[in-house]
Amino acid sequence: MGGALLTDLYELNMAASYLRRGMDHEATFSLFIRHLPPSRGFLVVAGLEPCLSFLEGFGFDDDDLRYLATEPGYDEETIERFRALRFTGDVWAVPEGRIASADEPLLEVTAPIAVAQLVETYLLNQITFQTTIASKAARCRIAARDRDLVDFAFRRTQGIDAALAVARTTAMVGFAATSNVEAARRYGLRAAGTMAHSYVESFPTETDAFRAFAQDFPTRTTFLVDTYDTANGVRAAIEVIRELGLTGPLAVRLDSGELDALSRESRAILDRAGLTHVRIFASGGLDETDVDRLVSAGAPIDAFGVGTRVGVSADAPYLDSVYKLVEYDGRPVLKLSEAKATEPGRKQVFRGEGGDVIGLRDEPPPPATEPLLVPVMLGGKRAGPPRNLETARRLFEADLARLPEPARRIANPQPLEPALSDALKRLTEETRAEALRRAGARQTPPA
Amino acid sequence: MGGALLTDLYELNMAASYLRRGMDHEATFSLFIRHLPPSRGFLVVAGLEPCLSFLEGFGFDDDDLRYLATEPGYDEETIERFRALRFTGDVWAVPEGRIASADEPLLEVTAPIAVAQLVETYLLNQITFQTTIASKAARCRIAARDRDLVDFAFRRTQGIDAALAVARTTAMVGFAATSNVEAARRYGLRAAGTMAHSYVESFPTETDAFRAFAQDFPTRTTFLVDTYDTANGVRAAIEVIRELGLTGPLAVRLDSGELDALSRESRAILDRAGLTHVRIFASGGLDETDVDRLVSAGAPIDAFGVGTRVGVSADAPYLDSVYKLVEYDGRPVLKLSEAKATEPGRKQVFRGEGGDVIGLRDEPPPPATEPLLVPVMLGGKRAGPPRNLETARRLFEADLARLPEPARRIANPQPLEPALSDALKRLTEETRAEALRRAGARQTPPA
Repeated sequence: MGGALLTDLYELNMAASYLRRGMDHEATFSLFIRHLPPSRGFLVVAGLEPCLSFLEGFGFDDDDLRYLATEPGYDEETIERFRALRFTGDVWAVPEGRIASADEPLLEVTAPIAVAQLVETYLLNQITFQTTIASKAARCRIAARDRDLVDFAFRRTQGIDAALAVARTTAMVGFAATSNVEAARRYGLRAAGTMAHSYVESFPTETDAFRAFAQDFPTRTTFLVDTYDTANGVRAAIEVIRELGLTGPLAVRLDSGELDALSRESRAILDRAGLTHVRIFASGGLDETDVDRLVSAGAPIDAFGVGTRVGVSADAPYLDSVYKLVEYDGRPVLKLSEAKATEPGRKQVFRGEGGDVIGLRDEPPPPATEPLLVPVMLGGKRAGPPRNLETARRLFEADLARLPEPARRIANPQPLEPALSDALKRLTEETRAEALRRAGARQTPPA
Repeated sequence: MGGALLTDLYELNMAASYLRRGMDHEATFSLFIRHLPPSRGFLVVAGLEPCLSFLEGFGFDDDDLRYLATEPGYDEETIERFRALRFTGDVWAVPEGRIASADEPLLEVTAPIAVAQLVETYLLNQITFQTTIASKAARCRIAARDRDLVDFAFRRTQGIDAALAVARTTAMVGFAATSNVEAARRYGLRAAGTMAHSYVESFPTETDAFRAFAQDFPTRTTFLVDTYDTANGVRAAIEVIRELGLTGPLAVRLDSGELDALSRESRAILDRAGLTHVRIFASGGLDETDVDRLVSAGAPIDAFGVGTRVGVSADAPYLDSVYKLVEYDGRPVLKLSEAKATEPGRKQVFRGEGGDVIGLRDEPPPPATEPLLVPVMLGGKRAGPPRNLETARRLFEADLARLPEPARRIANPQPLEPALSDALKRLTEETRAEALRRAGARQTPPA
């Protein structure tokens, strides 16, 4: 039990105040993305599993409470109320790996307001970050068509935890492997990697380096061929393949220069040598736009390593996520002052042939639709065993196969636009009218 | 001991090969940033402390080795060689908090090549990420002049670890507080926060919410005044301040709308009520450009909360960092094929009135200069106690005070441009000539 200090101070202030005042009614908060970045047509939901683990173990331990009694200095009664807090609420969520849109609730928490408020920061952090990366990586998957992708991001992600999450989410959208060894162990992924330029340089000749590496790893040899001159590097690889009679999976890796021209030249040299089975692997600062360009041009590249620009989602490193109060003590809530009002109430997303409809959780599903949100935690307990990565991957593949072309586009994608159900529209209007009536009474009149 | 799987697979392959071949000569790798993003004029070095902790504890534990024996399947002798590996090398580094430039070595590792190679991924990850954030946050410091800054990034950083690092690095460059409670505890920072709009909405009227909050936190009351109408919100705050006779530090917070106009209006209302001591706090998607605009315009804002866009360094979420072999077995090394050659050899940066000079570590320092790199680890042991955040903060303030105006600029900054010492230029030319001679012999001749 612990982790409850992984929050913003204002959450603690609000929770302390609610608890002191006996404001322990149930609240429902809805987590969603308000707008997609211009270069995104869809979202891939990720980050749910760490949230559920966090909620299961949620609580303040003695050290946490000692700290809070000193700094910022909560009174003793508040400390005792904090001590008793557990997450005993319900969570409905869109499962990891599913494709979703802006405005669609990705996760809804229903719990006494203090605790529902306290967990905001952690839930937002994990869902925002991992969904950011999964959505970026999914675009690489689309760009790569049937070519393999490998996650090379570890060295420049925003921290070590981030690298582990990047390996996991890229696997979720169908990457074939990761360079990150710890992530490979932890999540059961395939680890991939060959050698760096410094290895080639630390031998007297390039051929010496290739020979040494192939002797040491005869069953998985990829030759990094661009340290000096790519075409000569490919010839050195061929020399070593023949000399040692290598038969394992073989590849050459291009890590710099004009990858389209160099891959064609390398393929021709290999094919002329009868080595049609030696694969070509390309890397070097690539993102989905580069991959799309190379694949569209017909560059004979079998696999791409993508790194930093995907691992930090460089063109859109965060999403405009929010965690909004939509129901309190059984009453739907919306905030008037926002440019675009939040829809009130507990929700569901109904997916059918014609697209998604955002409706109320308890309204009858439209015919031939599937509900996206499922109960993942009830009364503070997981509603089932943790879903594994393979399940998420399957969900992603199924949703990807049905994703409309305009949203899939690499350049100028068109975002999915969910409709609102009549019941939700009605509730929104009613709640808005009621809020306006109350606002008249609530606002401080001009002095 | 552990952590050695926090690496890319290719590092393990190379290390295995070096160890098997008895290639255990000392290598020096230099970590530096090749180019600054267009919107950066300088770097603030950060991330060293976690690197030193990692190196001190570096090693493979039994679980690590069991994994590597299965997947990718290293042979028994390699596993035993891995088992014996420790980091016993030297590290010279620019201390955290110092200002530096592209091309300047931020950290140099000297160790037997296998282990020096294995730690690359971790060191690059930490220095790249934390330097990215510290450099972004330092621009906020410059933009804010004497106004306070508070880190609000937790909810949308790239993971939980990232949020902790953001709180630490923003404190390093002089932020006054963080919303992140766990970070405040861990690093001895001031935690700051008030209430969210949902708190105001969960009371019958705005005044009721303010009264409740002020009763619960009479010694640190900040009123969030923009839930309904900002001017009316300020009046409600005044009403509660008078009613309860509040005397503690007081503030109003503006979180939306035209902050320049709203802060002036709020200031005028507060001043007319004789509450000149009530501070104005502004937040809401701000970065250094917004802060600079508001401060330059003379908006009466006393403190800024900056969040996501600083916490992920949204305009430049990574730096072009590299870890290059510069010396092997006593011989300087450079890579010919790069557009811009890396300078070989172990280096030092000499800082004087006229700017920085990158030279060789062992050359006599130019007169009236200070060396930037200091030994932080010798023979695998820290060369001193961990430097605390306060030391880093002092170093940053001193360097900031001397930073030339063109590099400080918020719009179109001009990067610092270190010179090269004559000795380094000479060594580069000699090494280049030698490398060209060797390359003739090394490259595979055309078939």
